[in-house]
Amino acid sequence: MIEFYTWKTPNGRKVAIMLEELGEPYRLHPVDISKEEQFAPGFLAVSPNNKIPAIVDTGAPGGPLPIFESGAILTYLAEKRGRFLAATGAERFKTLEWLYWQVGGLGPMFGQFGFFALMSKKKVPPAIDRFRTEVERLLGVLEGRLSTSPYLGGEHYTIADMATFPWMAAAMERMQPALGDSLAQKTAIHDWLARVGDRPAVKAGMKIPA
Amino acid sequence: MIEFYTWKTPNGRKVAIMLEELGEPYRLHPVDISKEEQFAPGFLAVSPNNKIPAIVDTGAPGGPLPIFESGAILTYLAEKRGRFLAATGAERFKTLEWLYWQVGGLGPMFGQFGFFALMSKKKVPPAIDRFRTEVERLLGVLEGRLSTSPYLGGEHYTIADMATFPWMAAAMERMQPALGDSLAQKTAIHDWLARVGDRPAVKAGMKIPA
Ligand SMILES: N[C@@H](CCC(=O)N[C@@H](CS)C(=O)NCC(=O)O)C(=O)O
Ligand SMILES: N[C@@H](CCC(=O)N[C@@H](CS)C(=O)NCC(=O)O)C(=O)O
Repeated sequence: MIEFYTWKTPNGRKVAIMLEELGEPYRLHPVDISKEEQFAPGFLAVSPNNKIPAIVDTGAPGGPLPIFESGAILTYLAEKRGRFLAATGAERFKTLEWLYWQVGGLGPMFGQFGFFALMSKKKVPPAIDRFRTEVERLLGVLEGRLSTSPYLGGEHYTIADMATFPWMAAAMERMQPALGDSLAQKTAIHDWLARVGDRPAVKAGMKIPA
Repeated sequence: MIEFYTWKTPNGRKVAIMLEELGEPYRLHPVDISKEEQFAPGFLAVSPNNKIPAIVDTGAPGGPLPIFESGAILTYLAEKRGRFLAATGAERFKTLEWLYWQVGGLGPMFGQFGFFALMSKKKVPPAIDRFRTEVERLLGVLEGRLSTSPYLGGEHYTIADMATFPWMAAAMERMQPALGDSLAQKTAIHDWLARVGDRPAVKAGMKIPA
């Protein structure tokens, strides 16, 4: 059984989508980060970086296995079930490069742009500009990839799409006014959002936790 | 043969260390990012995100395989040679969680702190403060891990240490004045830096490209 610690944010939704795609049995533990529940000692024992998502696989060979970091969790579940990540070869590493790109680039940079442009009450123009430029660059890279390939890893839907979808869905909802045309005109991204967003497991995962 | 595109920065050094650890034959292609060489069409064909490091494995089964993103490259080389990343089990996923933590957390946040606190001529106190707080938090998480475990993945030196070492070495060189005691007092980090930094392959990798 997978114990699943999460919240209503893009990084949590990546793993929710994967669990739904696999039909994997799991028990939900909402961690309300607006109430600082990510600093509770019980949660820190699982996720010492005080961030969701995290899991514990209580049935792992060798004893209960806690894992934090969405990219590591997605890889664990993919390898456990042999799905959504090729076992070897070019497809495997195209998937992993775009998964790392999401976790190391798109995620942190969209996060900082969201903070400075949308959440922060103090307006700090040099920071807003820096992260807007980076978000626009990343959108261009994503549009380039999806113009030549239906999914981030190549021909097949993989954990790289599951990692990127919730961030792009959040961007569509909240960043459009701050970004203007640079998001609206990305037709390959919009087609991919429709294609991925149409999957029943994606629809279900995007509502977890309710 | 590995074609290795890199520069004298922490993300490039991760892969240089791994290639040296493996004794893997490679050909070096310096990409001077201070001269915008990362935007040359030949490099973008390998690394569409216009960042180093990137590799092409010219001998991959199925034809030349280009890979960007340091975490994906480290995983590729580890799986190609069966070293520095356990094939299954808890050790594998402890290594991957800390590798993702470095790529998604420590790397981008140290990078932004370095930009606002050290590089930017315009001083933007709210941004400096935000990223200083995050750097100090991450240093605390790293100190906690290394207080209970000799290496990031557990008992063995792995690609998670190779990813984190060049960033911590750069922090020791350049961030000490801006961070003061919060770096100086982390004794488990200092012990680990000495242990990892003593490896011949680490010494060699940290000088590539010359
Ligand atoms: N690199 C991490 C990022 C996780 C992350 O940023 N989680 C946020 C919510 S989306 C969080 O838990 N924030 C609470 C905090 O930082 O205290 C991953 O991919 O899992
Ligand atoms: N997440 C990437 C980050 C790579 C990165 O930031 N590379 C920097 C040098 S350390 C770079 O090439 N910057 C040039 C640019 O962004 O134009 C990785 O881990 O490979």
